Amino acid sequence: MELDFAKLSRPERYKLLVSTVVPRPIALVTTLSKSGIVNSAPFSFFNAMSSEPPLVVLGLEVTDYSPRKDTGDNIRDTGEFVVSLVSEAIAPHMNLCAMDFPADEDELEGSGLTAVPGVKVAVPYIKESPVSFECKRMTTLEVGSGNRIVVGEVVYMHIDDSCFDAEKMHVDAPMLKLIGRMHGGGWYTTTSGMFNMPRIAYADWAVERKKA
Amino acid sequence: MELDFAKLSRPERYKLLVSTVVPRPIALVTTLSKSGIVNSAPFSFFNAMSSEPPLVVLGLEVTDYSPRKDTGDNIRDTGEFVVSLVSEAIAPHMNLCAMDFPADEDELEGSGLTAVPGVKVAVPYIKESPVSFECKRMTTLEVGSGNRIVVGEVVYMHIDDSCFDAEKMHVDAPMLKLIGRMHGGGWYTTTSGMFNMPRIAYADWAVERKKA
Repeated sequence: MELDFAKLSRPERYKLLVSTVVPRPIALVTTLSKSGIVNSAPFSFFNAMSSEPPLVVLGLEVTDYSPRKDTGDNIRDTGEFVVSLVSEAIAPHMNLCAMDFPADEDELEGSGLTAVPGVKVAVPYIKESPVSFECKRMTTLEVGSGNRIVVGEVVYMHIDDSCFDAEKMHVDAPMLKLIGRMHGGGWYTTTSGMFNMPRIAYADWAVERKKA
Repeated sequence: MELDFAKLSRPERYKLLVSTVVPRPIALVTTLSKSGIVNSAPFSFFNAMSSEPPLVVLGLEVTDYSPRKDTGDNIRDTGEFVVSLVSEAIAPHMNLCAMDFPADEDELEGSGLTAVPGVKVAVPYIKESPVSFECKRMTTLEVGSGNRIVVGEVVYMHIDDSCFDAEKMHVDAPMLKLIGRMHGGGWYTTTSGMFNMPRIAYADWAVERKKA
């Protein structure tokens, strides 16, 4: 089947993208408003995009059916945000953060999560998340129709002691038990279906091919 | 544990990011060189980032241990690329595309994949992938040290008929059997650990909270 994106409606394009670009990592993003109110909302238009400098990117989609404007406005106003990754244990709490809380209500408290003050940024991170990245905005692309792509530099990281060997700088990734976002209608995936496929060196492969 | 990113080496930062920002969707990216040679390489610094306009973002990391410079140079020179998503079935082929083929060897052919001419771009897509997006570069951020963040607009989509109901515009996402990238040392995950967690409306939740 072939689909010309110029001939599709916005909801159709959205549905096609979120149903096929999977599994997506999930950022539970905390920000502070100018008046100091903590905001927290999950985003799966998110990924690491560079290690030098260390960058993460967020796609902030503002639509009638996903009107989470606060995150983008707060990053614009303060230049700071924190990304907390989402484990199986905090998934139900993240789902509460996705609700449209009234502006004067603290989303983290309402969702049963704990805000801990950041070290390099004023924005708090989430205590219950196994991994959090404190970020400073590098730049924001206003791509149209209210949508923004935020590029943030990671300046500081918090990681659960039980998942990290400080001496070897080794993360026990399976122990993080992070979840990924799948298609619409509330579908997610655990990362329990892990398998190993080591990288192959061309030289080794070329030798085998000659033999075959 | 707390980690100040300013005090870490680049390999340390890279390892921390790829071990914790998981699961990542995988783009098998095809490009054409100025002289018409097809290049194909997998990237997991990748995601959809907007539906209006429809955008995908690629983080192209150039390091000694991951010297895949061709994709970035080809996008710079031609302004076009195709993203093909990676299913369980084509995972071993993707792994061959990750090898450092000599510049004069066709990676797709060597990897046992089939290049099919694009409709809106000159770059071919991969026949064996269940989903491919033809993309035109919107902009590229040169973020430093050879690293680039490429923002591409999706102009055309190919999807396997068996996974798509054209009348309802419905993707059978589980049937795509896409895989995600996990931590280093060749770890991936299937999306077989799917579960459903419907979004909750604040109004409903507030009523329940009052009762409790």
